[in-house]
Amino acid sequence: MATVAVTQFSDRLAAAVERTHSSLVVGLDPVVEQLPPELDGDLDAFCRGIVDAVADHAVAVKPQSAFFEAHGADGVRAFWAACDYARSAGLLVIADAKRGDIGSTARAYADAFAGADAVTVNPYLGGDSVEPFLETCRRCGTGVFFLVKTSNPGAADVQDERLADGRRVWERVAELVAEWGRDLVGSSGLSSAGAVVGATHADELPVARRLLPRAPFLLPGIGAQGARPADVAGAFTAAPGSALVSASRSVIYAFRETGGDWRAAAAAEAERLAGEIRSVARG
Amino acid sequence: MATVAVTQFSDRLAAAVERTHSSLVVGLDPVVEQLPPELDGDLDAFCRGIVDAVADHAVAVKPQSAFFEAHGADGVRAFWAACDYARSAGLLVIADAKRGDIGSTARAYADAFAGADAVTVNPYLGGDSVEPFLETCRRCGTGVFFLVKTSNPGAADVQDERLADGRRVWERVAELVAEWGRDLVGSSGLSSAGAVVGATHADELPVARRLLPRAPFLLPGIGAQGARPADVAGAFTAAPGSALVSASRSVIYAFRETGGDWRAAAAAEAERLAGEIRSVARG
Repeated sequence: MATVAVTQFSDRLAAAVERTHSSLVVGLDPVVEQLPPELDGDLDAFCRGIVDAVADHAVAVKPQSAFFEAHGADGVRAFWAACDYARSAGLLVIADAKRGDIGSTARAYADAFAGADAVTVNPYLGGDSVEPFLETCRRCGTGVFFLVKTSNPGAADVQDERLADGRRVWERVAELVAEWGRDLVGSSGLSSAGAVVGATHADELPVARRLLPRAPFLLPGIGAQGARPADVAGAFTAAPGSALVSASRSVIYAFRETGGDWRAAAAAEAERLAGEIRSVARG
Repeated sequence: MATVAVTQFSDRLAAAVERTHSSLVVGLDPVVEQLPPELDGDLDAFCRGIVDAVADHAVAVKPQSAFFEAHGADGVRAFWAACDYARSAGLLVIADAKRGDIGSTARAYADAFAGADAVTVNPYLGGDSVEPFLETCRRCGTGVFFLVKTSNPGAADVQDERLADGRRVWERVAELVAEWGRDLVGSSGLSSAGAVVGATHADELPVARRLLPRAPFLLPGIGAQGARPADVAGAFTAAPGSALVSASRSVIYAFRETGGDWRAAAAAEAERLAGEIRSVARG
């Protein structure tokens, strides 16, 4: 019986980080009012321009579904066009959708995002709700990044609540993520079940890393949200791909600070950030 | 200075329940393989047919975004077409999207779903993440149903964890929802910030109701998931609109059990369920 060999997402990620020497993920958060005026609100042109500008400096892009969905069906078409364009440019695509639902609905979401390399998922609904996503990982070689501890101040409301055994809610979630990702560990030693941990919580990163030794971390919060690459040192292990640092507005709208061509400004900021992250990851 | 008077979602809901004498919400979960063969996979025709069939028996429809998103941009167009059609048929529309994100992303999601009467939202990211949705409620007279305790078995993984003070995580979330909805209470006495509580957890419903005296409850889990209308008696208060009972597959695919015309089968099951719920709500 022939079996189809699928390369795990985590192994593809590790290889991509080694090839590009970059752990930078550029978030695609297109807001019409903030685009370069010459584009006249053309999301496609903006996403293509950013992908071209950062392709030599980033390992992945992270299109944020909300900014596309705000434009209805046209926006969703632009979302997938951006994903396709990025993949053809050699970048991995992490669909930032933060989905989470149950049963056949979770299955439909897993199918909806199987065209990306990985998708972000909300864990509040528990193990059976994430199983369709894990099944897609096993079958298609895709990945999932589960929200563990988010970068916003309000994260404390639920995620930092203290459980009876002394753990916080997000630590319990981290343990679940470790469990969910156990059979998705590739030859790189990393699992294809990753974790979103805010770069804004520098003190928590070593705790999260202890709970999730094999999970690739996706670390948002650098740039506009105030964290700096040096804050995320505790997230890296020796494995390439162990931690991905995500920046969105500070890269894609860099021209608003620096002036000049918007693509050149994004490329320069991506190159600068990638270098800074490289020195942190090696430190 | 002129101010625009906006009718609160909760007041529109209360009026709609009084007018229709129904607390039934019909979930639109279109799966191509399960549609009546004569429709040849036409989601639009299916949704229109179901809306026509249930309009006299339900107070709202709940289109499930995932099943539309699984068809990409075309599916998202069909989602909004179904919403428009349902509203023109006099039904309220609860967009079941379970979104949740932070900052400007949450704002984009709130905008994306402002065209529905209400939207379901995941609370894991905390207060600042839900504020853009609440702001849309205040400005547009829409509502939010926050996931509190979901109907699936895996809900226990995170939601039932016991906090240091003895509460479970979902009870903490319920308290947050009560807080978030405090300034959205309309003249009906209900808040426009509602709660999703699985009908499969009959014993928890009175607990949830005590924590959330003013929240409209959206109760999924009837029918295919095994709960029965009698299980949700503890969710109703004297206020019309206090509890909405949602059924999806058991209504929209009723023809698979009964045979005959799919629209007639859906209408008959919706009428039967609405009557059963009416007797529970009055009990």
